[in-house]
Amino acid sequence: MFQQISILGPGLLGASLALAMKERGLCQRVHSWSRRAETRLQAMQADWCDAVFDQASAACEASDLVVVCTPVETIIPLIEQVTPSLSPEALVTDVGSIKGLICREAQSLKVNFIGSHPMAGSERTGMAHASHNLFDGAACFITPLDGDNEAEIAQLQQLWQAVGMRVVSTTPEKHDEIVAHISHLPHLLASSLCAYLARMDANWKGLAGGGLRDTTRVAAGDPTLWKQILEQNHEEVLRAIDGFENELQALKGALLDKNTPELIARLERGKQFRDSL
Amino acid sequence: MFQQISILGPGLLGASLALAMKERGLCQRVHSWSRRAETRLQAMQADWCDAVFDQASAACEASDLVVVCTPVETIIPLIEQVTPSLSPEALVTDVGSIKGLICREAQSLKVNFIGSHPMAGSERTGMAHASHNLFDGAACFITPLDGDNEAEIAQLQQLWQAVGMRVVSTTPEKHDEIVAHISHLPHLLASSLCAYLARMDANWKGLAGGGLRDTTRVAAGDPTLWKQILEQNHEEVLRAIDGFENELQALKGALLDKNTPELIARLERGKQFRDSL
Repeated sequence: MFQQISILGPGLLGASLALAMKERGLCQRVHSWSRRAETRLQAMQADWCDAVFDQASAACEASDLVVVCTPVETIIPLIEQVTPSLSPEALVTDVGSIKGLICREAQSLKVNFIGSHPMAGSERTGMAHASHNLFDGAACFITPLDGDNEAEIAQLQQLWQAVGMRVVSTTPEKHDEIVAHISHLPHLLASSLCAYLARMDANWKGLAGGGLRDTTRVAAGDPTLWKQILEQNHEEVLRAIDGFENELQALKGALLDKNTPELIARLERGKQFRDSL
Repeated sequence: MFQQISILGPGLLGASLALAMKERGLCQRVHSWSRRAETRLQAMQADWCDAVFDQASAACEASDLVVVCTPVETIIPLIEQVTPSLSPEALVTDVGSIKGLICREAQSLKVNFIGSHPMAGSERTGMAHASHNLFDGAACFITPLDGDNEAEIAQLQQLWQAVGMRVVSTTPEKHDEIVAHISHLPHLLASSLCAYLARMDANWKGLAGGGLRDTTRVAAGDPTLWKQILEQNHEEVLRAIDGFENELQALKGALLDKNTPELIARLERGKQFRDSL
């Protein structure tokens, strides 16, 4: 499918993609670049990696696919930096959790960029947790813009399908609206719940059951990465918070008014949604 | 430890307790009663059960321990009903998720009642999911009142310790405050998040990653049981919601004001709490 691919920032997603592509014979060679020397050393010892570079541009030379897997704030600067070294036909994508800003800015660069967002992250980051089946059965957004090359869109779609994903094509703006609700809001709620409980008696946490652990697992995610995601998607995130607050207010109202049918109806609606996940 | 125990309402918790006690030789005989004929039939076929009764009072005759495992609203009515059949020295406890109302009302009955709350529930209810190691390593509240018999308090504590639990003794009111925060609030947030997302495009849920599934798992709990818990603990639950709303407002403020240090500090505080769970 590809001769040579470049993974810029091989963490959980990038290293897993390289593993999955190698295992399925989807590429011949994998080049990688990381900002940190320690990660470059790790990549040198990894089976999926054929060559490690100190400079991102050198890692991208002659590749037919470049996948940018760095934190969202650094995706565009990195693409700008490597653009002069890219083959004219190289396809560039990313795995960032927001798409609007990235896709709009990439459009003004001389590069064949189409955004991707595989929904296969985890609160456990880093190459050490990489797995060739990380993507199996999960959803992947691709967010082409009007005028993007149809063959390249098809190629990107086939790539994610080939590593086991269900691919959904939508606009960057719609993507950002959807993930604000199904990913960023749940993260914010888990994180705020933890930040709130952190102010209580420290002994309480030893008393919690499995429910609290599940509900808050994602709050262990890296604050620096999440701050970037939330800031870059802040309009949609704020809208999602507002909607959630209204829902919580209504449930509080049902409790305050001792409106049992209303309380049950709301819990029932929540259960039905959860059972259907 | 006990000659004969009675489990009233053997669901996940009651059947697991009987299993755990039998396996550890903590009781000779287990009597059980259920409201539903179907559950009585199931109990008749279960290894942990020696006799099944149609009447709760008959199930309690000559027992030295009675454990009430029914939904919280029915605990006091059931204790009232069986009181005339109890041995004078029988110890009565429950596994209800709220303690204030139950313990206050039980105090006016002629019964040796001390409240318990093993934090070992699950969104999966029913005898079919019972396990002899359900309680292993989990916390259990006991909520004796002033004037309760010291020997009985010690016996109850030893029982929960013997099935593997870490026992914490506190007042019913303190218990209700704590679980409002570490159990009822997380449930409400998960449920409200699901109820909110249920109003969105139905296709969105197929796009969610593992984070949303974890965050909302508890929302699959039985709405009828949860409505009783939330209503019986509604003062503490409302207080916990208010506190959480303030936390969420502050995080929203940091996003609105693009106050990055504040946003990171809040995410960091949440992560630290979660990592320490």
